[in-house]
Amino acid sequence: MAETKPVFLVIGAGAGIGGHAAKRFAAGGYHAVLARRSDEDGLARLVGEIENAGGSASGVLLNASEDGAIEDLVARIESDIGPIDSALYNLGAQIGNRTLHDTPHKTFELGWRLGCYGVFRLAHAMFPAMVERGKGSLLVTSATAAVRGNAGQHSHAAAMGGRRMLCQTLNAEFGPQGVHVAHVVVDGPVRSPDTLVKLLGDKWDAFEAAKGEEGIIDPAVLAETYWHLAQQPRNCWSHELDVRPFNDVPWWNDNPDPTINSRAGKPGFAGPGE
Amino acid sequence: MAETKPVFLVIGAGAGIGGHAAKRFAAGGYHAVLARRSDEDGLARLVGEIENAGGSASGVLLNASEDGAIEDLVARIESDIGPIDSALYNLGAQIGNRTLHDTPHKTFELGWRLGCYGVFRLAHAMFPAMVERGKGSLLVTSATAAVRGNAGQHSHAAAMGGRRMLCQTLNAEFGPQGVHVAHVVVDGPVRSPDTLVKLLGDKWDAFEAAKGEEGIIDPAVLAETYWHLAQQPRNCWSHELDVRPFNDVPWWNDNPDPTINSRAGKPGFAGPGE
Amino acid sequence: MAETKPVFLVIGAGAGIGGHAAKRFAAGGYHAVLARRSDEDGLARLVGEIENAGGSASGVLLNASEDGAIEDLVARIESDIGPIDSALYNLGAQIGNRTLHDTPHKTFELGWRLGCYGVFRLAHAMFPAMVERGKGSLLVTSATAAVRGNAGQHSHAAAMGGRRMLCQTLNAEFGPQGVHVAHVVVDGPVRSPDTLVKLLGDKWDAFEAAKGEEGIIDPAVLAETYWHLAQQPRNCWSHELDVRPFNDVPWWNDNPDPTINSRAGKPGFAGPGE
Amino acid sequence: MAETKPVFLVIGAGAGIGGHAAKRFAAGGYHAVLARRSDEDGLARLVGEIENAGGSASGVLLNASEDGAIEDLVARIESDIGPIDSALYNLGAQIGNRTLHDTPHKTFELGWRLGCYGVFRLAHAMFPAMVERGKGSLLVTSATAAVRGNAGQHSHAAAMGGRRMLCQTLNAEFGPQGVHVAHVVVDGPVRSPDTLVKLLGDKWDAFEAAKGEEGIIDPAVLAETYWHLAQQPRNCWSHELDVRPFNDVPWWNDNPDPTINSRAGKPGFAGPGE
Repeated sequence: MAETKPVFLVIGAGAGIGGHAAKRFAAGGYHAVLARRSDEDGLARLVGEIENAGGSASGVLLNASEDGAIEDLVARIESDIGPIDSALYNLGAQIGNRTLHDTPHKTFELGWRLGCYGVFRLAHAMFPAMVERGKGSLLVTSATAAVRGNAGQHSHAAAMGGRRMLCQTLNAEFGPQGVHVAHVVVDGPVRSPDTLVKLLGDKWDAFEAAKGEEGIIDPAVLAETYWHLAQQPRNCWSHELDVRPFNDVPWWNDNPDPTINSRAGKPGFAGPGE
Repeated sequence: MAETKPVFLVIGAGAGIGGHAAKRFAAGGYHAVLARRSDEDGLARLVGEIENAGGSASGVLLNASEDGAIEDLVARIESDIGPIDSALYNLGAQIGNRTLHDTPHKTFELGWRLGCYGVFRLAHAMFPAMVERGKGSLLVTSATAAVRGNAGQHSHAAAMGGRRMLCQTLNAEFGPQGVHVAHVVVDGPVRSPDTLVKLLGDKWDAFEAAKGEEGIIDPAVLAETYWHLAQQPRNCWSHELDVRPFNDVPWWNDNPDPTINSRAGKPGFAGPGE
Repeated sequence: MAETKPVFLVIGAGAGIGGHAAKRFAAGGYHAVLARRSDEDGLARLVGEIENAGGSASGVLLNASEDGAIEDLVARIESDIGPIDSALYNLGAQIGNRTLHDTPHKTFELGWRLGCYGVFRLAHAMFPAMVERGKGSLLVTSATAAVRGNAGQHSHAAAMGGRRMLCQTLNAEFGPQGVHVAHVVVDGPVRSPDTLVKLLGDKWDAFEAAKGEEGIIDPAVLAETYWHLAQQPRNCWSHELDVRPFNDVPWWNDNPDPTINSRAGKPGFAGPGE
Repeated sequence: MAETKPVFLVIGAGAGIGGHAAKRFAAGGYHAVLARRSDEDGLARLVGEIENAGGSASGVLLNASEDGAIEDLVARIESDIGPIDSALYNLGAQIGNRTLHDTPHKTFELGWRLGCYGVFRLAHAMFPAMVERGKGSLLVTSATAAVRGNAGQHSHAAAMGGRRMLCQTLNAEFGPQGVHVAHVVVDGPVRSPDTLVKLLGDKWDAFEAAKGEEGIIDPAVLAETYWHLAQQPRNCWSHELDVRPFNDVPWWNDNPDPTINSRAGKPGFAGPGE
């Protein structure tokens, strides 16, 4: 079907980041394989949109936390569709803020399965062929929780912190073999129809009004950055970068508005001195 | 047995860091509970040494990766010995450098079970009583792999990166409730009879000669820092710190010796310029 | 005067961190030299308190931003009092939050002179003798601005960011020669009579009521951590650590209270997903 | 001259990163203003190359460490050429590895003037008009020394550490006003004719043979990443990213080759355990 096209595999291909990345890579000449857990109709719609735009794509339902599922998918693509040139691991493990008491052991483990173990499994299955071809890339959508652990984020932060370190070990071993691993810290809200928009429901309009249209990441725009990363010649690769809307507060900053900053003026107090 | 003494629990109580921490806390008036996976004789010897020095201690064999084991131990201590005031999670997940290919899925999962999930389980079981008492501390021996992922460290770094973020989420929720969580990055070799010394075997003498006696962390010295952390009044708590011998190269530095530094002169080349 | 005592030099010796560190080291057997820019009476009072407690101390007024001032002081101490064993650089460069427009070039430069260049000058003057003696320590009181740049902190953060990297380069060169450099990120308000208490004036009581007595760092407590750092045997040195009150929000965390957190729920929105 | 074109200003426009960035922005429709300290012929050659390729450019000699020089240049461009839409601060402060003893005070200060203060001065002069227009970007070529201080890098690391924190404070204040600040950590050698190639001289061929052609950053490739950053729509801005060749060792990693890694096996020794 897509014999002459390089394959771009998206694990976690909803209508937001994953779907838009698939569209961007398809527009750039890739055959996109979109994998997601559920919503066969939504999946077919995304594939259809890519094909209507003249691109090549296929879709598959995938329970990434199931043993063997990722491995089988990679094997099937390599044998039936073509060599995977680039992949995007776009599964999250966000379950909202929960106290430790309200974070059951099974939940914590599932967070790890989706947030960290899945990246390991994808790399394990996919990298050998990339190494043989001396070429490939793995993009990983990550979250602020990979670099700091907020209250209530036990499961998510532990999974994402592991994910980030794993991306470093993968890069250390596979970079010199030609496989580009990039870890992207998405530090702001994303206009994702299947997640954020759905989650907010009736509150979306108020949310958008408060943030402003440009205060929410457009997944089509983020897809351009993913495309740029995957196309960087290997003399100049980026391993880690952050993205957020211009008017958002980066994770390392206090909110400058003293009315909503519990630490207003703190820098004025904390410094050494006398 | 130790009714009037606060309890210090060590999970991972070998003759190195864990055992010395137990001795230090016992010397400071705690009843030390030493838990380790195997070597009943070694365990009895440590308990004996503490008792001979006039301290109070007890030992227990524990398979920390087994479901319910940590939870049962905490419950038994609280009911049979006394309130746990401080604990040290001292289990590692280091398995040496292995390629991704030589890192089986079960190995990666076990790394997470010991390196990350065990901290979650200990906190889950132990913190409610500490919160009720408004007081407690959890010290976590961590590794350089928690802050950067070296080649060959897939399993270890993913586990430790998760551990570090988890310590931040635990601190965020439980610090304000009086529970002190401290994450210690041990960035150098430790004179641990049950691990490093045993591992090196015949090569120990050459290793020690190369490093120098003071080039290897003395676990009794590190135990003083653990004691200091656990005794910090709550107006001034440390959450994260590093330790290494004076003559070691911190993880973030290149080795300054150009004969063994593949990036010798790199800083001179890398800077912006023209 | 203090011939047989090792000297502890404090640059920035007000009644808060600097003065309490001087008291702690004097109690531990050091002769403390307290240097500060102004307030001869306050200085004499601190020296008197140390002497009344049976310790040994002397005071000197010092304009640390003046060329040659630090260098002269170090030379005079070494020749007239005794070898400097430990020093604390406790000068800040905090000027409160100011827009870039309201940060004059001279202000930015002065921030650098006090916040970064002074550490360089102190090390330049003091380390050669320490290296000759194979022993010494430099403690540096630092601020959150050393690890992240908040809005309005142009001058302070640029100075402190430089200070932190300088502490790393000093450690890299001088650690193996026996000189211990420790960089302490003070990430919370300090009960400093000459700075925070004076600055808040009438508002102090309300501030203390809001934070709680234990929600403000007691400089005497922080001094114990400084003492611990300076006394670490050289097989186990810490280079960087943080301190803050138990109920404060670490710099990397959002405030968990949704009513004062502009990013409330952000983690739930930002994660990768679909 | 370039009335209808947006202006791209490069401070530090040699034949490497700066010149190639100028070419890329000129190719994208900007008028490039190239500023460098010396070599009028080299400057004219770069301008000529851009014009021959159909682009628009002008060159100017600039001593960036001179008071008023950057400010005057910005004012002249805004009045004589056109509004500055994007700028690249591409001046380094690398002077090679020097001990503290061999780092004179004037050298340390000059490092700060070029490495940190110059960014402050450029932003001070250039941002008000950008804020008024609600649009602009400042790209900053930075170095590994901004994130860790290696031995011998006192001057460079202190300057770059300050630069990085300053970029964060500038982003915090000006991002919400529409000005994009991006800090790029160049963590590898760059094929820069005016710096690295010249510096290595006869040794260049051996260096290139050792690294491999793709083991050295091509400034034309890095320029594409700069272009991407400057063109990111404001709903999805990157603030910090790293770049290095595929076969280079990232700054946070030990060299995996045990024959040239002084810490070979260290991860196996350092972990907590027992």
